[in-house]
Amino acid sequence: MRIGIVQFAPEFGDKEYNLGTISAVLNKAEADLVVLPELCTTGYQFKDMEEVRALCEPVPGGESVRVFERVCRERNLFIVAGIGELAEEICYNASVLVGPEGHVGTYRKVHLFDEEKDWFRPGTQGFPVWDIGPVKIGMMVCFDWIFPESVRSLALAGADLICHPANLVLPYCPDAMITRSIENRVFTATANRTGREARGGKEPLTFIGRSQITDPKGNRLAVFGAEEEGLKIAEIDVPQARNKRITKRNDLWEDRRPDQYHA
Amino acid sequence: MRIGIVQFAPEFGDKEYNLGTISAVLNKAEADLVVLPELCTTGYQFKDMEEVRALCEPVPGGESVRVFERVCRERNLFIVAGIGELAEEICYNASVLVGPEGHVGTYRKVHLFDEEKDWFRPGTQGFPVWDIGPVKIGMMVCFDWIFPESVRSLALAGADLICHPANLVLPYCPDAMITRSIENRVFTATANRTGREARGGKEPLTFIGRSQITDPKGNRLAVFGAEEEGLKIAEIDVPQARNKRITKRNDLWEDRRPDQYHA
Repeated sequence: MRIGIVQFAPEFGDKEYNLGTISAVLNKAEADLVVLPELCTTGYQFKDMEEVRALCEPVPGGESVRVFERVCRERNLFIVAGIGELAEEICYNASVLVGPEGHVGTYRKVHLFDEEKDWFRPGTQGFPVWDIGPVKIGMMVCFDWIFPESVRSLALAGADLICHPANLVLPYCPDAMITRSIENRVFTATANRTGREARGGKEPLTFIGRSQITDPKGNRLAVFGAEEEGLKIAEIDVPQARNKRITKRNDLWEDRRPDQYHA
Repeated sequence: MRIGIVQFAPEFGDKEYNLGTISAVLNKAEADLVVLPELCTTGYQFKDMEEVRALCEPVPGGESVRVFERVCRERNLFIVAGIGELAEEICYNASVLVGPEGHVGTYRKVHLFDEEKDWFRPGTQGFPVWDIGPVKIGMMVCFDWIFPESVRSLALAGADLICHPANLVLPYCPDAMITRSIENRVFTATANRTGREARGGKEPLTFIGRSQITDPKGNRLAVFGAEEEGLKIAEIDVPQARNKRITKRNDLWEDRRPDQYHA
């Protein structure tokens, strides 16, 4: 199965430009599933709540998901993308899973970073997993990475591949995702944005790029530099993620001892 | 507070040699607490259960803890050391905490690696934390590292410093402990053995060395090479581990969402 990650610098507030850039990349993608960054159609550094509300959209039905649906149908692929969701007047930092037959599912970011707490409501539907046939997909967004419970929850629920749209500004995540892969024996695909935002007199944000795909042994199968843009693809062998055995006598799932853990 | 880690190659079955080596190092240690490797007084690759039983010992009261107690009293320090424990005819892969006033506590390894399952019974007392005054100590042993729940349990129970005796043969742990530090904002001290064992016609084991001390931001404060032996010391600033805040708006403990996690 061919997994792609896209790294680029969205233009704040310019959905037409961002969706055009994304479509241009996806129209040439020889992949079965492509992961895009967090808030990839809107940009990240909102000035006020009005701006957030104006850029969030219903899922499905909104502009971004409609474009993704068209591309997925035409290219016979799946997309995971971070976008702003508007549902009953509430905004969520969401990740959508779209396929050749349309919208499949939505994850709403559980752990909000910094100012996101002013703009979005945290998700309350946990960490769901979608079985799309060749692979079981879990989604998380950016800062969710620092809580080991995020990938753990998805892996215990059966995810083979963690799709991880991100707008990372701290440097730690790419190496931590190696640990996430090893401790859960899963593939991970982190699509981070690059570039810089400085809006409304706020502290400028520099996004770290370094998007990557990892395998269950912690190998990097694809990796971007800090400022590189475009699409990278890696072939993944899904059954590797379903074998949690690491020695003849050790299976990472059978060896867990939940009765010994502090919640 | 000065934390030491000792890396050396124990001689299988030769407690006198091993305790002599350890005492010689500790007698010159300018530290407040020193961590020693897993099974540091016995060696690792047992041939049969008789050998295991002969080398395990009561805790406290056994030969190793008596030596540790003497050194701790004379040098006014704390020791964390991996040893084989014998309790009511049952053997445990244990880690002991000893101080100037004697034995303080014992952790029995919860997650047993490979053949250890033939020799030891897994611990059933979870991941306790000991408050020794300047610092709260959590202990885990070697393979416990791969389960994020181990350090998480200790950190949630208040541990500032994770003392981690090890006999690592896989290459992943040193980098994963960086992630453990960052995700829990704790100090970690992994004391791994070095050298090689090949006993009873078994597959030879090469231990990876690379013992290290990390801080809550994931910096390495001390690090050994693969084959280096001796003692390394780092000064730790304990309050750093008690501040779980990583941005003005994000506290790693307050931001956890246990109701959203899959157990």
